[in-house]
Amino acid sequence: MEIVSFLAFLCILIMGFQEPVHGRLLSVSKPNPGNAAATARWLVAENSWGVLNTISSELNGAPFGNVVSFSDGLPNEGKGIPYFYLTALDPTAKDAMKDERASLTLSEYPLGTCGKIDPENPTCAKLTLTGKLKIVENKSEEAQFAQKALFTKHPEMKEWPKSHKFQFFKLEIENLFLIDWFGGPKPLTPEEYLHPKMNNLHWMQ
Amino acid sequence: MEIVSFLAFLCILIMGFQEPVHGRLLSVSKPNPGNAAATARWLVAENSWGVLNTISSELNGAPFGNVVSFSDGLPNEGKGIPYFYLTALDPTAKDAMKDERASLTLSEYPLGTCGKIDPENPTCAKLTLTGKLKIVENKSEEAQFAQKALFTKHPEMKEWPKSHKFQFFKLEIENLFLIDWFGGPKPLTPEEYLHPKMNNLHWMQ
Repeated sequence: MEIVSFLAFLCILIMGFQEPVHGRLLSVSKPNPGNAAATARWLVAENSWGVLNTISSELNGAPFGNVVSFSDGLPNEGKGIPYFYLTALDPTAKDAMKDERASLTLSEYPLGTCGKIDPENPTCAKLTLTGKLKIVENKSEEAQFAQKALFTKHPEMKEWPKSHKFQFFKLEIENLFLIDWFGGPKPLTPEEYLHPKMNNLHWMQ
Repeated sequence: MEIVSFLAFLCILIMGFQEPVHGRLLSVSKPNPGNAAATARWLVAENSWGVLNTISSELNGAPFGNVVSFSDGLPNEGKGIPYFYLTALDPTAKDAMKDERASLTLSEYPLGTCGKIDPENPTCAKLTLTGKLKIVENKSEEAQFAQKALFTKHPEMKEWPKSHKFQFFKLEIENLFLIDWFGGPKPLTPEEYLHPKMNNLHWMQ
């Protein structure tokens, strides 16, 4: 029976390592789709990367999406505003310095909680935050917040080459487009989304 | 010993279901980063969804990214051109009908092959295809190709509500932005990317 117990333990061990996200477990389960603000905040809190879109200065004003890492705060302490660590060697930061209009797009799909449904199925939540991509003032209190938020979720960033002159950016949110169920996008204002009561997602389940 | 065999079988079963992509296994392993065209084609072949960016007519010309499913062909028979199944009830198709400029952004990260590196690490490949988002002519040969390509990879699409008037769209690629290693974007033309020799990724490894 010892072998049986060992194999049972092995099974539990293997199953325990089946993480829904590459690299980390989801810390909060998906909110009720009826709660639009909580669902949007959850997508921002649990995703570590997204597609940041700008108006391309190199490609005659085409909309240009770029894969970026972001963070809205320490794990489970996010405030909803996405911060980025970008270099003007990359088109996204360069574009934003000429035209601040931008959007950040996130999907529930890579979190592993959509199951077998299609990534475009409306019950697999998706979010687009539209607004202005702005540089965070160097050495400000907000820059300290951004640094801690980003370097905690993305420890590699600490080592990124100084010569590339990475800077902290944030998306000032003006509009939210959230689909998390049938029936079209959910009405959701930046005020509802950024409301301090949303800072504890555990209470919002 | 029967219980032991059963548990061993169970373990194998559990491990067998640990797929690197949600829903399907990668059919081709990652090409050498030195081969830009093969890497770009691999990202398009293996990803089932991405972020499709348009110039928003509702949000005063802001760049608007939307999570969409796509397909460039049957599994292992992709041709590199991404096809979509969109409804004008959604902002993306509506935008494209007013301004065709668009980009599709993909990341290697959700494929599960980036390991422990950050999603923004340049060795975790990312691709932005920029061009024109066009309606595929109804009942044309290309529409048949698009339908087969999409409905095979996204079987759910067959059941999407007729009343939403979904149509096939494609991205006519004019520019490629690929990062798959240190040293900035890889030079890659649409001709190199769409070259017929790229239609068999197994040969390009």
